[in-house]
Amino acid sequence: MLNFKENEELNVLNHSCAHMMAQAVKHLYPQAKFWVGPVVEEGFYYDIDLGDDVIHDEDLPKIEKEMKKLAKDGKRIVRHEISREEALEQFKDDEYKVDLIERMPEGTNISMYTQGDFTDLCRGPHVESTKLLKNFKLLKHSGAYWKGDKNNKVLQRIYGVCLPDAETLEAHLADLEDAKQRDHRKLGKEMAMFMFSETVGAGLPMWLPNGFTIRRILADYIMDKELSQGYVHVMTPSVVSTKLYKISGHLAHYKDDMFPIMERDGDEYCLRPMNCPEHMVMYKSTLHSYRDLPVRIAEIANDFRFEAGGALTGIERSRAFTQNDSHIFCRPDQIADEIKNVTKLILDVYGDFGFETYSFRLSLRDPENKEKYFGNDDLWEKSEAQLREVLKEMDVPFYEAIGEAAFYGPKIDVQVRSALGHDVTLSTIQLDYQLPERFELEYVDSESNKVRPVVIHRAILGSLDRFVAFLLEETKGNLPLWLAPKQMVVIPVAPEAHGAYANEVADILRSHGIRVSVDARNEKLGYRVREAQMSKIPVELVVGEGEIQERSVTVRRYGKKEAVRMTLDEFIKAAAEEIRNRK
Amino acid sequence: MLNFKENEELNVLNHSCAHMMAQAVKHLYPQAKFWVGPVVEEGFYYDIDLGDDVIHDEDLPKIEKEMKKLAKDGKRIVRHEISREEALEQFKDDEYKVDLIERMPEGTNISMYTQGDFTDLCRGPHVESTKLLKNFKLLKHSGAYWKGDKNNKVLQRIYGVCLPDAETLEAHLADLEDAKQRDHRKLGKEMAMFMFSETVGAGLPMWLPNGFTIRRILADYIMDKELSQGYVHVMTPSVVSTKLYKISGHLAHYKDDMFPIMERDGDEYCLRPMNCPEHMVMYKSTLHSYRDLPVRIAEIANDFRFEAGGALTGIERSRAFTQNDSHIFCRPDQIADEIKNVTKLILDVYGDFGFETYSFRLSLRDPENKEKYFGNDDLWEKSEAQLREVLKEMDVPFYEAIGEAAFYGPKIDVQVRSALGHDVTLSTIQLDYQLPERFELEYVDSESNKVRPVVIHRAILGSLDRFVAFLLEETKGNLPLWLAPKQMVVIPVAPEAHGAYANEVADILRSHGIRVSVDARNEKLGYRVREAQMSKIPVELVVGEGEIQERSVTVRRYGKKEAVRMTLDEFIKAAAEEIRNRK
Repeated sequence: MLNFKENEELNVLNHSCAHMMAQAVKHLYPQAKFWVGPVVEEGFYYDIDLGDDVIHDEDLPKIEKEMKKLAKDGKRIVRHEISREEALEQFKDDEYKVDLIERMPEGTNISMYTQGDFTDLCRGPHVESTKLLKNFKLLKHSGAYWKGDKNNKVLQRIYGVCLPDAETLEAHLADLEDAKQRDHRKLGKEMAMFMFSETVGAGLPMWLPNGFTIRRILADYIMDKELSQGYVHVMTPSVVSTKLYKISGHLAHYKDDMFPIMERDGDEYCLRPMNCPEHMVMYKSTLHSYRDLPVRIAEIANDFRFEAGGALTGIERSRAFTQNDSHIFCRPDQIADEIKNVTKLILDVYGDFGFETYSFRLSLRDPENKEKYFGNDDLWEKSEAQLREVLKEMDVPFYEAIGEAAFYGPKIDVQVRSALGHDVTLSTIQLDYQLPERFELEYVDSESNKVRPVVIHRAILGSLDRFVAFLLEETKGNLPLWLAPKQMVVIPVAPEAHGAYANEVADILRSHGIRVSVDARNEKLGYRVREAQMSKIPVELVVGEGEIQERSVTVRRYGKKEAVRMTLDEFIKAAAEEIRNRK
Repeated sequence: MLNFKENEELNVLNHSCAHMMAQAVKHLYPQAKFWVGPVVEEGFYYDIDLGDDVIHDEDLPKIEKEMKKLAKDGKRIVRHEISREEALEQFKDDEYKVDLIERMPEGTNISMYTQGDFTDLCRGPHVESTKLLKNFKLLKHSGAYWKGDKNNKVLQRIYGVCLPDAETLEAHLADLEDAKQRDHRKLGKEMAMFMFSETVGAGLPMWLPNGFTIRRILADYIMDKELSQGYVHVMTPSVVSTKLYKISGHLAHYKDDMFPIMERDGDEYCLRPMNCPEHMVMYKSTLHSYRDLPVRIAEIANDFRFEAGGALTGIERSRAFTQNDSHIFCRPDQIADEIKNVTKLILDVYGDFGFETYSFRLSLRDPENKEKYFGNDDLWEKSEAQLREVLKEMDVPFYEAIGEAAFYGPKIDVQVRSALGHDVTLSTIQLDYQLPERFELEYVDSESNKVRPVVIHRAILGSLDRFVAFLLEETKGNLPLWLAPKQMVVIPVAPEAHGAYANEVADILRSHGIRVSVDARNEKLGYRVREAQMSKIPVELVVGEGEIQERSVTVRRYGKKEAVRMTLDEFIKAAAEEIRNRK
């Protein structure tokens, strides 16, 4: 997705277009006074005082029409400077301009840009002529308090984009539409995956049956993978004594991101923002010999962070979420092997989900600011070298980021390229030398000395919530068969005549663990088929007289026009294999 | 288990025995002064001031020996009364007795009991002679603050029991030993199921890998059952806005049982003590037609209650627990069918777990105190009759409890008789007319009117935590194969020679979903076999030369002496069937 603010050419173009929009608005609303019209990541906007007038959806095309005229007219855009005093005199009836001019230091000249009958204050630069501003689009409008203060007047804010040519404009508008279609909040609602409610609280997701089904499949999937890799799973409480976070040191640094502390009977409790400290306590509860390591404790863990209201974004960023977390307790000589195992697990999982474009970011400490980090030079140099070695050996694409390490150790973040072209961090592997120290963790080495283990924090799917958001946006909701909450629907051509066979087929499929329903409503076949397509069910099975005779089904995949008739046995075999192979 | 306090005969016997113990103590510790010696549920105790002396374990047999002598001696126990003033005079050197006597109203006579050289204040009654007190046992001792106030002196408390004859004493001691062996806290620790930690907080269980494995199996088991019965599963957040509990009315009545309220940015949040209100919000989020009902929303739900410190009992009563909860939203005409379905599900589940002795308690409102209940006469009479009718029709053992209904509707609790003879409430079915009203729930009936549905709360396994506690106590930790966290261990006779085959067997078993490990440590075969038995692993598979030749395994079940050699294929078939049938 384009970033209009950071791309210099687009920045100038959009700034200029904001002026042209203002000019068009002035033509249509002579009373209009203008506040600021900046370029932002998504394009430009202008905040406008229209007196008692308000912008409605149907006004945007009118403004666009006037803008087209101005662009066609192709006036030159001319810069000139006047003194601060002249500017104040010239705009004395415009409280907004006066406000802006008064911020300038006395004695400075102020630059003005004029195109035909319209002049505006501006630092510039601008393009030479409105002729270059033909390829624009107004996107939306909203009310905005003057200076963002809700005690002030509400101004009319109009958003738009301008691009150098028609082709890129078209491509950008298509991208915007695509992003809108992929937005997990929209898809989550349409597909009844999750909901939010004012009564339950902002940022606290309620997972509906479809969403819970995916979560359950994902949790089972990753737990089974982990079990096969020698992990063990535990469950630790979501509410804990603050003692725990005093030891870990989180309470001092992390308090603002946590739900408030609860006090009762002289004790303090909090909702956990993460579960690492509990796993430390669990490790510490028994004696460990060097022969027992590594110990790999994993948890599908509910955690809670008090994200700012403005930062909340569906299930991507919420106040209650579930991590696919693990802590590996190992000897220093096991670090490389363990990092390798985790990397393998990540690649294995990405293969199952079909993620093909990803990169590993190796985050190192800033050698210029060693005092920011826990532990000595030798420890850091060795462990950084180990991580680099593993990434090379595994032959995965990686780059190094100096100064991006956590203060407690170097880390590897795995970033997957999304369909919208963003890099999304899904997985992470972090070395930690500090928590073992704070919790005084030990194992008995081969010479009977008590020594500290190293802790590796790692998450594969990241949080289940963010992972589901990512999957929805990647697939536009067209989930692969193994993950779809409703995998199949059986549609009898005539419910009366063919309903019994439809139910029999459904029962057989269910006995194979397939999530299937029957749509035997008294609606036209076409209507029922269309509705199944709308709700993104991967497989429709239509059954009528012919299918009953042959004990077959007519199979149509989501988004495909053609249908194939197969015997029931053939179909079950193929479907079971597809689900098993997670394709 | 006997209740010494409520059984009148045992009460008198134990009270008398407390005196005899005091007499024996006085003989051995002439400085002894006595505070109170009551009968409690578990027997009797006496709180004694021994000056600087302290009771140790090895002192109990000495006291018992002296008691034996007194019982053999068979002194008569004689009652007489003296005035309050005489008593104060007689015991003026005993601050404990003076304290007791001073509580009596002035002018009352005080009864005294004397046996030989020992006289004590007592309301009585007592048995006639110490001859009747032969069958006793001192069980334990502890320190106890005088009057329970930690600023006071620590007295020595000695516990005992007395029974009418040797046989019942022996049986009771065996029961006590059995209960001790069955205590889920003891088993949970021995079997590494769960742990608690001061640092994490009292009453906040940490589930270790073995315990989590059972929880996962149980959750999957009950969710799959529920899915096949038309339930859908959801997940709702553990922390919610207090708005929710203001609507439900819980905040006013339930606040003391909840973790403290959290306030931030002008909003109030709390840890949920139950999840009903969230399910109400979920139901309310979409329109419902009479044709869509019943809607059965289920959740494996983490809930939080601030139980008093003294009430905490392992995972049976903790501050964080997980309910197997569901809310059925139905039309009034569907109540009977839904209750029937839930009852069937309960019986089905009890069958799978082999629970054979249970009774249904139908809790009705108190017709003398109608104002305590929500809803009108007609509603109550009809719904009580419906529940009764269903229980009769299902032909399950049930009894009625008048006045035990919830204020919001009648309910059915299902009580299972435990191995220790207690009735434990596992499942519950509750009608609720009130929450639908408070949350203004609706559906559109066949005449297009908006009307209220009825809510049925139900839990089958109750809380997973209590259910695991119950299972451990019932089975003494010898879990059935399908539930055992570690189902099998393969033991190669000679690790070097037979280890490869052991690993091959284990891999094959794993591919059948069996939880198996290999014990190829360099320890003697007998040692490894014994250790497997100790850790209650249901199946040991010993493999040596003969087994390799035949591709067989020698199977020994937990607690059995004999072992059987079977081909690997036969064994896998039998084991898979046993697991599938949950035997």
